[in-house]
Amino acid sequence: MTLSNGRQYLAIPGPSVMPDAVLQAMHQAAPNIYEGALPEMVATLIPDLRYVARTSGQVAIYIANGHGVWEAALANTVAPGEKVLVPACGRFAYGWADMAEGMGIEADILDHGIKTPIDPERVRAALAADKNHEIKAVLAVHVDTSSSVRSEIAPLRAVLDELGHPALLMADCIASLGCDRFEMDAWGVDVMITGSQKGLMTPPGLGFVFFNDRADAVRKSMPRVSRYWDWSPRANPEVFYQYFDGTAPTHHLFGLRAALDMIKSEGIEAIWQRHESLARAIWAACDVWADGGPLTLNIADPVNRSHAVTAARLGAPNGSRLREWTDKNGGVTLGIGLGMSEPDDPNGTGFFRFGHMGHVNAHMILGMLGVVEAGLGALEIPHGQGGVSAAASVISQSVQT
Amino acid sequence: MTLSNGRQYLAIPGPSVMPDAVLQAMHQAAPNIYEGALPEMVATLIPDLRYVARTSGQVAIYIANGHGVWEAALANTVAPGEKVLVPACGRFAYGWADMAEGMGIEADILDHGIKTPIDPERVRAALAADKNHEIKAVLAVHVDTSSSVRSEIAPLRAVLDELGHPALLMADCIASLGCDRFEMDAWGVDVMITGSQKGLMTPPGLGFVFFNDRADAVRKSMPRVSRYWDWSPRANPEVFYQYFDGTAPTHHLFGLRAALDMIKSEGIEAIWQRHESLARAIWAACDVWADGGPLTLNIADPVNRSHAVTAARLGAPNGSRLREWTDKNGGVTLGIGLGMSEPDDPNGTGFFRFGHMGHVNAHMILGMLGVVEAGLGALEIPHGQGGVSAAASVISQSVQT
Amino acid sequence: MTLSNGRQYLAIPGPSVMPDAVLQAMHQAAPNIYEGALPEMVATLIPDLRYVARTSGQVAIYIANGHGVWEAALANTVAPGEKVLVPACGRFAYGWADMAEGMGIEADILDHGIKTPIDPERVRAALAADKNHEIKAVLAVHVDTSSSVRSEIAPLRAVLDELGHPALLMADCIASLGCDRFEMDAWGVDVMITGSQKGLMTPPGLGFVFFNDRADAVRKSMPRVSRYWDWSPRANPEVFYQYFDGTAPTHHLFGLRAALDMIKSEGIEAIWQRHESLARAIWAACDVWADGGPLTLNIADPVNRSHAVTAARLGAPNGSRLREWTDKNGGVTLGIGLGMSEPDDPNGTGFFRFGHMGHVNAHMILGMLGVVEAGLGALEIPHGQGGVSAAASVISQSVQT
Amino acid sequence: MTLSNGRQYLAIPGPSVMPDAVLQAMHQAAPNIYEGALPEMVATLIPDLRYVARTSGQVAIYIANGHGVWEAALANTVAPGEKVLVPACGRFAYGWADMAEGMGIEADILDHGIKTPIDPERVRAALAADKNHEIKAVLAVHVDTSSSVRSEIAPLRAVLDELGHPALLMADCIASLGCDRFEMDAWGVDVMITGSQKGLMTPPGLGFVFFNDRADAVRKSMPRVSRYWDWSPRANPEVFYQYFDGTAPTHHLFGLRAALDMIKSEGIEAIWQRHESLARAIWAACDVWADGGPLTLNIADPVNRSHAVTAARLGAPNGSRLREWTDKNGGVTLGIGLGMSEPDDPNGTGFFRFGHMGHVNAHMILGMLGVVEAGLGALEIPHGQGGVSAAASVISQSVQT
Repeated sequence: MTLSNGRQYLAIPGPSVMPDAVLQAMHQAAPNIYEGALPEMVATLIPDLRYVARTSGQVAIYIANGHGVWEAALANTVAPGEKVLVPACGRFAYGWADMAEGMGIEADILDHGIKTPIDPERVRAALAADKNHEIKAVLAVHVDTSSSVRSEIAPLRAVLDELGHPALLMADCIASLGCDRFEMDAWGVDVMITGSQKGLMTPPGLGFVFFNDRADAVRKSMPRVSRYWDWSPRANPEVFYQYFDGTAPTHHLFGLRAALDMIKSEGIEAIWQRHESLARAIWAACDVWADGGPLTLNIADPVNRSHAVTAARLGAPNGSRLREWTDKNGGVTLGIGLGMSEPDDPNGTGFFRFGHMGHVNAHMILGMLGVVEAGLGALEIPHGQGGVSAAASVISQSVQT
Repeated sequence: MTLSNGRQYLAIPGPSVMPDAVLQAMHQAAPNIYEGALPEMVATLIPDLRYVARTSGQVAIYIANGHGVWEAALANTVAPGEKVLVPACGRFAYGWADMAEGMGIEADILDHGIKTPIDPERVRAALAADKNHEIKAVLAVHVDTSSSVRSEIAPLRAVLDELGHPALLMADCIASLGCDRFEMDAWGVDVMITGSQKGLMTPPGLGFVFFNDRADAVRKSMPRVSRYWDWSPRANPEVFYQYFDGTAPTHHLFGLRAALDMIKSEGIEAIWQRHESLARAIWAACDVWADGGPLTLNIADPVNRSHAVTAARLGAPNGSRLREWTDKNGGVTLGIGLGMSEPDDPNGTGFFRFGHMGHVNAHMILGMLGVVEAGLGALEIPHGQGGVSAAASVISQSVQT
Repeated sequence: MTLSNGRQYLAIPGPSVMPDAVLQAMHQAAPNIYEGALPEMVATLIPDLRYVARTSGQVAIYIANGHGVWEAALANTVAPGEKVLVPACGRFAYGWADMAEGMGIEADILDHGIKTPIDPERVRAALAADKNHEIKAVLAVHVDTSSSVRSEIAPLRAVLDELGHPALLMADCIASLGCDRFEMDAWGVDVMITGSQKGLMTPPGLGFVFFNDRADAVRKSMPRVSRYWDWSPRANPEVFYQYFDGTAPTHHLFGLRAALDMIKSEGIEAIWQRHESLARAIWAACDVWADGGPLTLNIADPVNRSHAVTAARLGAPNGSRLREWTDKNGGVTLGIGLGMSEPDDPNGTGFFRFGHMGHVNAHMILGMLGVVEAGLGALEIPHGQGGVSAAASVISQSVQT
Repeated sequence: MTLSNGRQYLAIPGPSVMPDAVLQAMHQAAPNIYEGALPEMVATLIPDLRYVARTSGQVAIYIANGHGVWEAALANTVAPGEKVLVPACGRFAYGWADMAEGMGIEADILDHGIKTPIDPERVRAALAADKNHEIKAVLAVHVDTSSSVRSEIAPLRAVLDELGHPALLMADCIASLGCDRFEMDAWGVDVMITGSQKGLMTPPGLGFVFFNDRADAVRKSMPRVSRYWDWSPRANPEVFYQYFDGTAPTHHLFGLRAALDMIKSEGIEAIWQRHESLARAIWAACDVWADGGPLTLNIADPVNRSHAVTAARLGAPNGSRLREWTDKNGGVTLGIGLGMSEPDDPNGTGFFRFGHMGHVNAHMILGMLGVVEAGLGALEIPHGQGGVSAAASVISQSVQT
C-alpha cells in the first residue's frame, strides 16, 4: 500500500507548481505570429514584468533558461578580457562565473561558503583594491537556490556609490523574483536576470534581463554584441519578431500572460507576505523537529533565509531516505541537496531542500510538512514532536495579524 | 493577505478531486459514435466496473446522477403500488424513498436517526411482519454522505435469507464505492447503484446500476419498464447506441476509462487500505482537537464511520466560520453540514464535513488537517493542541505496517 | 501512405466538433457544488438558453441524452394510458414513439416515409378525427437526423388552433437547435426538447426541455411525475441541487457556458445564416456530382432540407466505400446512413450523411467536400466534375451579399 | 455574417498546426527535473531526432528559436575573424549571415535573388577562389521560408569534395525537416540546424543542432566556445542538467516526445510523400487559377519548390486583401509575403504564402484551397475556374498510386 496516490505535490525549488490557469492558457492552437492578437498581447507583458521587478527600466525576454540569461546579461555589458567580481554563497554564483569565463571574461570570486550571505565589506575591499576599475560588474545572486541563503542587495549599491566605482550591479533573481521582496530601482540594481519557472509560475523556457539606463549606456559602448543576446532590439522592437530575435515562444507567452494576471490580481506585496508567512511556518516545524534530532537548517539566522527555498541537513543517508519516503508514500517530492556534501557524505545524501515558491498556499505547505513529519517517524529518524502543528500555529497567527 | 493563493484543495464529499489523467482524457476531439475506437473502448469498461464492485453480475451505465440511478434501480424491479423498506441513517435514504414515492411506490422508512448505522434487527422485525411479502426491496445506503455513517450490508442479506423473504437487497454505494470496502457478490447484494463523481474520480454525469440474476429475473417479470431506465438493452446491447439508449456520453467515457486504469493499477484492496489509513489520520486529529474543545465527530464509534467522508460538529456558528476561514485563508474547501441541524442552529451552521474520497493522498489530507488546525487557532475556537501532528503519526504507522 | 495524418474532421451529424473553448472550459478542477461560483454561473445559463430557443418560457436541464429528454417531456405531460400523435419522416419519430410506448402511452404514428416533411393536412385529418381529444400531444421532429428532412412546425400550430384541439405541440430540436431557424414562441411550440451535442457544441450528456405555461398547466394537472423527470423543481429551484435533482453535471456546465458565450457573441441570426450558406455550398457540390453519376440527396427539394445534416445515396456499397476512403485517406469521418436501406442493400451501405452542425466554417466544409470529391475520383465512382469548386463559388456569393 | 466561426485553420509557414496529442502532453504538472521519469524520457528523444534527420551523428537541443541555433552552430565551429560563405535565395540566408556578422564572422554572400535555388557552380567558383581556405563553412538554407525555394544540398558536398575544400557544410532545415526529404548523412551535411515549430509540430522554443564527427573535430579545436552554445556537454551530458545547460524545458519536452511518437508511427518516408502530394495539390489549384488571372507562384519550376511552404504573388494590394478575406470570412489564416516587394509595392501587399507543413492532411489543404478560391471570387480577382477541384483530383491520384 502507498499513501501517495492522489495529486503529487512537487516541492522542489523550481520548476514550481504550475497553476491550472497557466497550463490551460498554454493549451491552445498555434497563433499567427505576424499580426493580430499575439503581438498585441505581448506588448501588455512588459509593464507587468516591470511591476513584478519594481522597476521603470527596460526588459528583454529571451527564449532561454537561467544559464542563457546569465550569458545574455554579460554579453551586453562585459567584453572578453574584462573582469567581473562574484561574491559567492552557494553553487549558482560559481555557475554564473563559469559562464563569464566561457565568454573570455575574468571572474574574481569571493567565496563566502554556503552558510552566510554576501558580506558587503568583503565586496568593498575588493572594489577598493580595483584602482583601475577593471571590474566591470558585480554579479550578486539574490537567493542562492542551493544554499537557500538570501543576500542583501542594497548594501552593495551603497558600497559602489561610496567608492565611486563604476561597475554595474547585477542581480540574479531566478529563485527570488515573485517570492522574496526585490526592489530593482530602489536598491540600485543595474541589471537583473530571472527565469519563468519559479515565482513567475510558467514552465521553464523563458529568461528575462531587466536593465536600467546606466547598463544600457554600457551596452551602447560595446564593440560587438551577439545578435541573439543583444537586448536592444528585444527591448525596443520595431517589428514584432525582434522581441525574440525570430519566432516568438507562443505558448510560453500565453502561459506568462496568465501568470502575470494572477500576480497582479494578488498584488506583489501580498505575494511577498504570503511567501514570508509560509516560510516561517516551515521554519517553525523545522525548529521543533531539530529539538531532539539531527535536523538542521543550512542558514542559521532567519534574516538570511530565502522565503522561496529552504535547505536542510539530516545527515547521510537520511536526506535521501526521507526524500524517497515522502515521494513514494506521501505524495511529496522534495528537492535534492544541491552543491552540498560532507567528508563522509560526498554525494550529499544527508541533505534535502524544501521548495516553497510561486503557486503555494497554506494547504500545500502544511501537507508537505505533515508528510515530512510522517516520514521522520516512519524512518525512525529522531526528531522533536509536533512540528507540523507548530507550523499550523504560525499560519493561524499570520492570517490573524 | 491570504494564504490560499495556490492550488485550492476541494475537501467536500463529492465531487472529489479529479485526477489530471481524467481531465486530460476528457480534453479531446469528439469521436465517431457509430464505429471505431469508442465502441471498442466502452466494451472494456464493463469488466473493470465489475472488478471495482466485486461482482460477476451485470452493469448498466446511465447518463444520470445518483438520483437518476436511484430511479433506474427501482424502475427495473418495483412496480407502482408495490412497497419498499428503507432503513434510514441520514439524508440520502430519505431521498431514495422520495424517489420511490414519486414513482408510486410505497416506502416504509425505518428511521435510525443520524448517528448510528442500520440495525439489522429492526430490519428483521419489519420483514418478519411482512407476511405477504409486500416488500419488494430493502433499500440500504452503504455510506450516508450526510451523516458519514457506514452500515453493514451483509447482515441484511443474512436477515433476508433467514426469513426466506424474497425482497431484493439494494445498496446505494454512491459515497462508498472505490473508497470503503464493498463486496457485492460476497455480501449478497442484488442491486447496487453508484455514480461517477466520488470513488470513480470522474466528473458527475454518469450513474451505474449493477445487478445480479435474481434482480434480472424480477426485471423480466415487470409489466413495463421505461425505455430510458430499462437495464436490459444497456447491459446487453446488440448495437452500440443501446449501451446508453441513444447518444453515448463520449467525454465522460474517456474520463472513466482513465480513472479505471488508475484503479486497476493501484488495486482495489490497496485503495481501500489507503482510504482507511487516511480516515484514521483524520479521526486522530479530531480526537486531539476534541480533547479541550467543542469539536465532536457525528459517528462516535470508528467501526461505523465511512472511510470516505467524516461529519463533524463544532457548534453554531463555528462550522460555517471554520469553512469560510479555510476556504479564504488556507486553500481548503470543506463540505457543509448536510441534513444536520439543532434547535438553536436550524441552518446547520455548527456542522461541517471532511470529504476524503477518491484521488487523495497523505499530502492532501495532512494539508487539509493543518489548515483546519490553523483555522481553529485563528478563530479562537477552543481545541486540543497537536491534532495534525497526531495525524502525521498515524500516517507514519500506516505505512510502516 | 495516407493523406489523413493531420487534424481529423468529424463530419457526422452529432456529436459535432467541440470548440477548443468548450474543451478548455471543461479542463478544470472539480468545483464546490454547494455554494460559490458554480451556482452563480448556472443561473446565467437560463436566459441564454432561452435566447437560443427564442422563447420566454421555462427550461429544465437534465443529465441525460436526447432519449432521456424524450421521456422527460412526456413524463411531465402525458399519463400512461393516454395517447400521442406522431407524424414520422425518419427514424427518430419512431424512436420518440417507442419511448412513449415504454411509458404506457399509445402512439399513433403517421408515416411519411423518409423523403418528405410532415404534411400538416395529414395531421389535421388525424386531429379532426379525434373528437374526444384523446390525443394529448403532437410529437413533431423538427429535423430528422437520419433522413435530414426538416418539417415546418408553425403550420402544425395553425392546424391545432383552427381545430381548437387542446393537444400540446412538442418539437424535437435535437438536430436543429442552433443550426436551423427555430422560433419556439412565434411558432407556438408548447414543449421543445434538445441535447447538448449538436448545435450547442458541448459533449453529449445534457438534455433540455423547454416549456410554456400551457404545458406547465398540464404538468400541474398530472397525478404523478417521476422525481427525476419532473421539470418543476428543475425550472424553479429553491436550492441549487434541485436544478439537476441531485449532483450537478459540473464539467458539462463549464462547457455549456463557454458554448453559449460563443453563440451570443456570434448572434443566433448570424448562426442560422452561416449554417444555411454552408448547407447551400454542400448541396451545390452534390448537384454537380449528381450530374453524371449515381449520387442523389435524400430530400429532393432544398426547402425541405435541414441546414445541419444532409443524407445522400450513392448506391451499395459505395456509401460505405466512400466513408472508409475519406476516413483513411483524407482525414474526414462522414456519417453512416441511418435508417436507410433498399431491397438490395439491407444494411444501408449505399448511404452516407454529411454532418454540418455547430462549430463549422467554410474551411471545414470545403475541406470535407474536397476530400469527398477526391474519394469519388479515387474510387472511380462516376460523378460530375467540379463539385467543390461549385461549393466555393456559393461561399463567394454568400459572403458578398 | 461570417463563415469563419468554426475551427480556424492556421496556414502560415510556421508555427504549424499543433496536434492535439502535443498540446495534451504539455498540459501536465511540472515534473521533478533531477531524477525519475523526465530524465529517462529525454534520453529517448535523441535516437528519434536522429531518425528524423537521417543521421547517426550527434544532436544538441537548445532552449532557443531558429536564430538561436544559427548562432549556436557558428559558435561551435567558426571563430570571430573567420569567414563563411552564404549562398542566398531568400531572406533567411541573409538572417544567418547577419547572425554571423554579429559574432565577428565575415560572411561572403552569394546573392541568387528569390526565384532560384542555390547554384552549385557559383559555390564552386567562390570556393575555388578561396585558395587559403579562409572560408570555414558554407551556410546553406535547405528551404527558404520566404521565397519557398528548395535548394539541393548534396551537390554542395560534391563541390567541396571535388575541390578538397575543408569548409564545413551546414544546412538550415528549419522549414524543411519533417516535410521535405532531407538526408543528413547521405548528403554529406556536417552541421544541420532546425527548430521545433514546423515539421516537428511542437510550439516554438526549442532549437536543435545536429553535427557529425568532422564538425565536432572543429569544435574541439576552437579556442573558446560560449557555455550556453557549447554543444559538447549538451550532446554528451554526464548529469541531466547538462542536456540544456541548466533547467530543462520540461513542457516542450513532453510535447516533443508526443510529436516524435507521431512521426515514428507514420514513418518519415510516408511523411515526405504526404507533404509532396499535398504540395502538388496546392500547385495544381494555383496553376488553374493562374490561367486567367494574375496569380503566379514565386518559384516557377516545381523541382525547386519546397513541399512545406509555397510563396505566391497576386499583385498589390490583392495579396493582403485575400489574406484578410480568408481570415475573416473563411476561417483560414494565410501567411504574409515575407521579404517580397516590388517597386510599386514596397510593403509586399501583393504577396502571400501557403504554409503546408507538419500536421496537415487532405482535408486541411483542400479546405484552405476552397476558401482561397472563394476569396478570389468574392474579391473579384480574375482567376481560372476549378482550382480546388483540380487539387482534389491530384489527391485522388496520389492515394491511388
